Amino acid sequence: MRTTVGWRADGPATTLRKASLRRRDLRPGDIAVRVDHCGVCHTDLHAVRAPREAGASVVPGHEFTGVVTETGAGVTRFAAGDPVAVGNIVDACGTCAMCRAGQENFCHEFPTLTYGGTDRHDGSATLGAYSREYVVRDRFAYPLPAGLDPAAAAPLLCAGVTVWEPLSALGVGPGTRVAVAGLGGLGHLAVKLAVALGAETTVITRSAGKAGDARRLGAHDVLISSDPDRTAGSRDRFDVVIDTVSAPHDLAPYLRLVAMDGTLSLVGHLGQVTLQAMDLLVGRKKLSSAGSGGRPGTAALLDFCAAHGVTADVEVLPSARVNEALDRLERNDVRYRFVLDLSDLS
Amino acid sequence: MRTTVGWRADGPATTLRKASLRRRDLRPGDIAVRVDHCGVCHTDLHAVRAPREAGASVVPGHEFTGVVTETGAGVTRFAAGDPVAVGNIVDACGTCAMCRAGQENFCHEFPTLTYGGTDRHDGSATLGAYSREYVVRDRFAYPLPAGLDPAAAAPLLCAGVTVWEPLSALGVGPGTRVAVAGLGGLGHLAVKLAVALGAETTVITRSAGKAGDARRLGAHDVLISSDPDRTAGSRDRFDVVIDTVSAPHDLAPYLRLVAMDGTLSLVGHLGQVTLQAMDLLVGRKKLSSAGSGGRPGTAALLDFCAAHGVTADVEVLPSARVNEALDRLERNDVRYRFVLDLSDLS
Repeated sequence: MRTTVGWRADGPATTLRKASLRRRDLRPGDIAVRVDHCGVCHTDLHAVRAPREAGASVVPGHEFTGVVTETGAGVTRFAAGDPVAVGNIVDACGTCAMCRAGQENFCHEFPTLTYGGTDRHDGSATLGAYSREYVVRDRFAYPLPAGLDPAAAAPLLCAGVTVWEPLSALGVGPGTRVAVAGLGGLGHLAVKLAVALGAETTVITRSAGKAGDARRLGAHDVLISSDPDRTAGSRDRFDVVIDTVSAPHDLAPYLRLVAMDGTLSLVGHLGQVTLQAMDLLVGRKKLSSAGSGGRPGTAALLDFCAAHGVTADVEVLPSARVNEALDRLERNDVRYRFVLDLSDLS
Repeated sequence: MRTTVGWRADGPATTLRKASLRRRDLRPGDIAVRVDHCGVCHTDLHAVRAPREAGASVVPGHEFTGVVTETGAGVTRFAAGDPVAVGNIVDACGTCAMCRAGQENFCHEFPTLTYGGTDRHDGSATLGAYSREYVVRDRFAYPLPAGLDPAAAAPLLCAGVTVWEPLSALGVGPGTRVAVAGLGGLGHLAVKLAVALGAETTVITRSAGKAGDARRLGAHDVLISSDPDRTAGSRDRFDVVIDTVSAPHDLAPYLRLVAMDGTLSLVGHLGQVTLQAMDLLVGRKKLSSAGSGGRPGTAALLDFCAAHGVTADVEVLPSARVNEALDRLERNDVRYRFVLDLSDLS
């Protein structure tokens, strides 16, 4: 076994403490990555704050960039020194219909999650990238394109691909009218990507104070959802509405904004959803949902971001301030993604 | 005013009685139709059985065929003697985005329903086609193609167009894998239409006893939903699932059958729907709903049915037996649509 150091919540603790962690010895298909930057995702917050049994622990972190330090005997895609990026999936069965379609995130046997998962070979619990080293199967690491800032690129691997999936699956491009509801970690990347794809992009937000930011991110228009006149005038207006709102909420106001044959895609709140069938029926609208992505989609996103200079707006903190980052994330006090700098763990 | 005779439920009555009815004098754009055949839709059952205030009454019937008897001064599309068909919409604003797109069923000002609606010009309540005459704006009547049996064609105007809409909107054709859940008035027409469109068509039913009927209707396969092995083996199998089940039900088992990027379309139960976003997310599936259709879609359906010899499987009853038809429909004792023969009202 190898050892590294990271940030772990043990037993009932709802904060993280520095801890020594074990990593597996490299299998032939593995690479070891020195983790330089890891984004702070809402999922991490839920994982740290959720009740845990005594004896259970969690090391969060599933959107990170770093440098390859060592490669397994069978690895040909990477060499020591290569910059790489890893997202929230580190393995999958590879043989089911979804894996064969390049959608390992939908693996019928369930993909192995970067943390909180179970390794398919030795049955161990996976520990995330709030740590200085991660050992990962090479197929689930991606070359980090030159020109992308490693800190600002880290959130692309979870937040980015989550909004990239519906944008690309729904064929968003020039002429598409896209609205992004909610301007947080997911929302601000959805805006940047939709704009870069050439779509006519509108931000829907409750707070008029975010209008300036929305424009700065490239949005062509801003719809303040508390303004009934503006929202009434935007009925049936958007081909695609990406709903990044993370709390449970009524879908009817967003469905009204969807154009005929358009789609409302839920990427923020992934729990139970209640709606009226008539709100889909009238205008022949569709409801979908997205989260994470497969290997081809993730690679395509990184290429696209490199070509168009898209990264996240980040606030980089030394990893020792991880609990402060989680507290502020819980209050939505971040524009728009915290990224931990893990070099303080060396 | 003109007078005719029809079947009406008055006040608290939950059955229909023969009554003299008034029809408006023809406006320049109207035609008068001698109603020969009218289908018995679930909506009619709900309308008759629903509590009504004292003084209120209902004349059901919104899928009918007949012959033009008289035309208004401005009518050029029809002449006396023409066979026609009328569905559940008899007017719309004509100017909103939905009307301009040929989806009068989604009219922003709400379309005028064939019964239980309010005429846009004189404010009168519309009375349905369980009657010997109907007066309708010519734009909302369709030439009944030669070769279609008028009795068996009547249900195309509501049940038919309701399932035609999602089949055509979702691009169903050769190579599409379609499943139809539920084999009733809507379901049996969905099967016939999907088969005629060239799709690989499967019926999903709880009752093994319907397998023979499903095959006779043209289905290539039958999935008994109570057989867990078969349903498990059909995961991610269908590009389109048309859900015609009319009672509230769990959508998760049907969503599991939808293939990646496929769609579950609700046409039976149009009330509140509850689902887990993850059941859409995994496989990037879509939920939609459909009901009724616009003028171009209705005309296209009739042409398609004439070209492919598609009509409903009907049990024709003299209109005097209308209450028996409703009672049996309530027990699902019909294969697959009752049609009233209104000639006994002459």
